[in-house]
Amino acid sequence: MSFLPKTIETLIENFQKLPGIGPKTASRLTFYLLHMPQFELENFGKNIVSLKKSVVYCSVCFNISSTDPCPICSDEARDERTVCVIENPIEILQFEKTGKFKGTYHVLHGAINPLNNIGPDELKIGELLNRIKSGKIKEIILATNPNMEGEATAMYVKREISNLKSQNSRLNSLKITRLAHGLPVGADLEFADEITLGRALEGRREF
Amino acid sequence: MSFLPKTIETLIENFQKLPGIGPKTASRLTFYLLHMPQFELENFGKNIVSLKKSVVYCSVCFNISSTDPCPICSDEARDERTVCVIENPIEILQFEKTGKFKGTYHVLHGAINPLNNIGPDELKIGELLNRIKSGKIKEIILATNPNMEGEATAMYVKREISNLKSQNSRLNSLKITRLAHGLPVGADLEFADEITLGRALEGRREF
Repeated sequence: MSFLPKTIETLIENFQKLPGIGPKTASRLTFYLLHMPQFELENFGKNIVSLKKSVVYCSVCFNISSTDPCPICSDEARDERTVCVIENPIEILQFEKTGKFKGTYHVLHGAINPLNNIGPDELKIGELLNRIKSGKIKEIILATNPNMEGEATAMYVKREISNLKSQNSRLNSLKITRLAHGLPVGADLEFADEITLGRALEGRREF
Repeated sequence: MSFLPKTIETLIENFQKLPGIGPKTASRLTFYLLHMPQFELENFGKNIVSLKKSVVYCSVCFNISSTDPCPICSDEARDERTVCVIENPIEILQFEKTGKFKGTYHVLHGAINPLNNIGPDELKIGELLNRIKSGKIKEIILATNPNMEGEATAMYVKREISNLKSQNSRLNSLKITRLAHGLPVGADLEFADEITLGRALEGRREF
């Protein structure tokens, strides 16, 4: 595509590095930007450059934040006795949108994935255990993804917490839970896979 | 989402302005950028800011380019007697990828769309007629989109060229063509719509 101006070509390459964006979408986005007023481009470009500069990790939950501790950890209305353990900061957005969770979070920053050389030490698991040792937490919700890596991570974290409990009687009342599996709302039974349907059956509740 | 750092929130808004990017994709892209090294962000941001600065319109074909005339119009190996008329610069990419077109282009920069107040005067139709008046062009391929606006534009341009021909006997040999309609390659007859199938039948060729 050497007939394209260099600036367009490099921007297409930049967009292609983003997840889910192939060559066609990258071109479409770049050509779309050509129609945008220059001040919006300035704005957009500056925001990308400064994205990480004003962002820190919360030293309590390892969420990304502009303050430390983050707004959630420093919000007194949130229940710090319930901690939802997730893989990535973006998942906090999803939980907050439900409006059903008033506890706090702990971001592991990934899941155990031996194929990609991510072991437990690369994740914020030690930091989670330290939070638990303080004795304030009453429930740990293991909300890692329901896939192989997420399940393995949940199993590993559960075992580590159990070890901690066996050494420390103050932690006896600590509950470990996992998000419910079942049919997604709005789904069609006809298209449910057998594992999900099996879990939905196992986890059935009185109506 | 007030718990998010301001820089993240505004970047999500920036991404959402792009075509085909909703709130979820915008968040995903923004959070993905958080993992990128700072120098790549600098690069990406600067490319967006400088995108339009080094780009001009080719004064012959109105393609976007870093030089005027553009690399295609100034390439002596290209046949300037065949001109492919398209709506948007991005479509040149598609034609060049086929490797089957050795002529030149003319970018109208849109299609006639009365609902959006785009009339013939907003498009580079007058400029196309001026190119034709020079008498060098032997074939005009009307390659506007096969939708309502594209068809209307093709009809309009065809009529204007016919008017020109009736006034100028030098243009007698000028051919006006339109891209073939038919089944897309790899398609399934079962799912073809009746208009496309009708056109494919009309346009059938000896095998």
